[in-house]
Amino acid sequence: MPFDYTALFRPDLPPPAAGRFQGFPQYNFIGGHNDAASVPVPELAAAAAAVLAREGRDLATYGLTSGPQGYRPLRDFIAGALKANAGIACSADDILVTSGSLQALDLVNGVLLAPGDTVILEAASYGGALSRLGRLGVRCVGVEDDADGLRTDLLAETLDALAAEGVTPKYIYTIPTVQNPTGTVMSLARRRALLALATRHGVPIFEDDCYADLVWEGTRPPAIRSLDDGARVIYCGSFSKTVAPALRVGYLLADWDVLSRMLALKTDAGSGAVEQMILGEYLPAHFERHVADLTETLHGKCTAIVEALEAEFGTDAAFTAPKGGIFVWVTLPEGVDTTALAVAAAKEGVALNPGAEWVADPQTGRRSMRLCFGNPPVETIRAGVARLARICHRETGFPRRGANVVRAGE
Amino acid sequence: MPFDYTALFRPDLPPPAAGRFQGFPQYNFIGGHNDAASVPVPELAAAAAAVLAREGRDLATYGLTSGPQGYRPLRDFIAGALKANAGIACSADDILVTSGSLQALDLVNGVLLAPGDTVILEAASYGGALSRLGRLGVRCVGVEDDADGLRTDLLAETLDALAAEGVTPKYIYTIPTVQNPTGTVMSLARRRALLALATRHGVPIFEDDCYADLVWEGTRPPAIRSLDDGARVIYCGSFSKTVAPALRVGYLLADWDVLSRMLALKTDAGSGAVEQMILGEYLPAHFERHVADLTETLHGKCTAIVEALEAEFGTDAAFTAPKGGIFVWVTLPEGVDTTALAVAAAKEGVALNPGAEWVADPQTGRRSMRLCFGNPPVETIRAGVARLARICHRETGFPRRGANVVRAGE
Repeated sequence: MPFDYTALFRPDLPPPAAGRFQGFPQYNFIGGHNDAASVPVPELAAAAAAVLAREGRDLATYGLTSGPQGYRPLRDFIAGALKANAGIACSADDILVTSGSLQALDLVNGVLLAPGDTVILEAASYGGALSRLGRLGVRCVGVEDDADGLRTDLLAETLDALAAEGVTPKYIYTIPTVQNPTGTVMSLARRRALLALATRHGVPIFEDDCYADLVWEGTRPPAIRSLDDGARVIYCGSFSKTVAPALRVGYLLADWDVLSRMLALKTDAGSGAVEQMILGEYLPAHFERHVADLTETLHGKCTAIVEALEAEFGTDAAFTAPKGGIFVWVTLPEGVDTTALAVAAAKEGVALNPGAEWVADPQTGRRSMRLCFGNPPVETIRAGVARLARICHRETGFPRRGANVVRAGE
Repeated sequence: MPFDYTALFRPDLPPPAAGRFQGFPQYNFIGGHNDAASVPVPELAAAAAAVLAREGRDLATYGLTSGPQGYRPLRDFIAGALKANAGIACSADDILVTSGSLQALDLVNGVLLAPGDTVILEAASYGGALSRLGRLGVRCVGVEDDADGLRTDLLAETLDALAAEGVTPKYIYTIPTVQNPTGTVMSLARRRALLALATRHGVPIFEDDCYADLVWEGTRPPAIRSLDDGARVIYCGSFSKTVAPALRVGYLLADWDVLSRMLALKTDAGSGAVEQMILGEYLPAHFERHVADLTETLHGKCTAIVEALEAEFGTDAAFTAPKGGIFVWVTLPEGVDTTALAVAAAKEGVALNPGAEWVADPQTGRRSMRLCFGNPPVETIRAGVARLARICHRETGFPRRGANVVRAGE
């Protein structure tokens, strides 16, 4: 009889993994995956061979010869790219390479948060951030955004209301440049207003810029971090979206008083060195051109999903066309429950993120959903949205019309 | 004026990192680094180029096409190697690839431990395990070992004493094959006795086999996991010691009831895929030969440090010659405090692990130290041990004699 662990498990564990991996669904609109044909395969293979041949012996020491902050040439590249693209003045010394931006979230949370603390974030925000905060017993207070990003008028009210309760939030988490899930880009004026409010209330800002290089228009407002002369902003980025998700390489930018605390919590003996070495070798010569090409490809997929949503859902799908990135945030009519829709859709090979997992207040996201368009080919996007519309109509009565034809059920 | 985070930090943080990385010390006897010349550089570069060219597009999806348990060809190799080398019958489905064995420790701890829990381990044990347990508020109960490994007669007494207190330990953590830091190999009889005791008391075993491939004699006893028909043993291993430390690839082996709980806590979107792909490509053709060569090299370094210790410290250094691995555990005479010695030695370029950080009861390790010999070349080992002896003599009066010459101070 197998040993029974049940009584030994820590009591507050999340539910176990539901089952073994069965492959990806046919229409995979979740997970932040990227365009497979855009992975720069020959260049990555060449970079790997070159850097390993030249520096492979350094793998014998934890952290190579660069120490716990990460491979020095990669940090040098990041510092240069942040200056050129986001307006941030920094050096390699200010950067901590992490195992994806998820480890960056864990380190920021680990340094700042205790159960009962409060965090402010956009009302709809990254599910991976929300689930972490929930596990930590942290109160999440959402502030609505619009096409210009986080509404700072509402943020001011929220900060005042919390102050009246005697609560100072531990940080304001924002994804200002291609917001996840709404796909908006915060205006420069809002960035300044946000920083002024944070300053007045003594609250740090945690700026997650993971999608910031994937803006259709090719330019982006300066990072909030670049507008801050007082190191109030902790900044994170990633190469998951610009090079490849399965490469687990992200980074944090913070001043030493915070970085030294994060280093003390980063007890992993360093993030994977080979992936850092490959990126450090590949990026300087290729990043700009690659990101331009990738962005064009993703823009094409975005157009495809927007057109498919309009064709299949008509006016029953409300959304703002994303300004960049890999997802669109769709709100369906009153009465639709996207958590139930996701279950029904999964049975027919369509995967989506139900809105309730992507909002600070689960009540507000019930009829919304996030659809990621980075991975499926354009034809698959079209077929998947059509299938989703059929399933949704059958389950909920919406969309009432699709492709200008009144639906009569399946 | 920079923003002051002091009041915002979580109150129970460990001390911040002491300072920025300044390069490795001249005589680096810490850190689990490995022999630089033994890193199979051309083979790893060739494997990287081949696997990326063939499967690089899979990097577009988190977890490649293998799902969250890790790259399937690597898991297949691990399952085969565990069968061949450790006697463990398992399949790729039982294996979870982790970001080094440190993440394996975190996942086991995360699933089983709450503050106030008790864990049994070898009286001298891995510092990275002890520091984690300390941070978690877990009580560590040490059991002495000898040349045959953990003394199961003392373990029986400890389990009885804890039972009398009403305490069931959450697990027994053991490094049976090349114990860290003592370098011993647990006998088969002790393995069976340990398993019987664990069974009688309803306690799981966490078997850390990270050094098990680096045994001088080339054979090793079967893993405790292989003797267990009831899945009582959670097993972990690593390629940090057999291929390269900066490759952050380890693994866990457990039954699904435990593995599914670990997967739910592994919220990192997968461990680095490129390092898994390179290992999955490299290992099947090269592992056996490489490990044989590496073990021979490390054995030579072990002989060098043993001879240097005998020459420089004479009878004032007590140690058992390691049966494998990359470290030796040295105990100095009464009155020596290796924590103070480490500080003095660091100033002169010699780094060592003070024993107090490597024992369950810090009082017992004060005059011991761990010296890692994997990384420094043989000449550096000799010079470093000589320098350490001089420093130690100056600071403590020991060794009284070195190289058969009475020391007269510096």
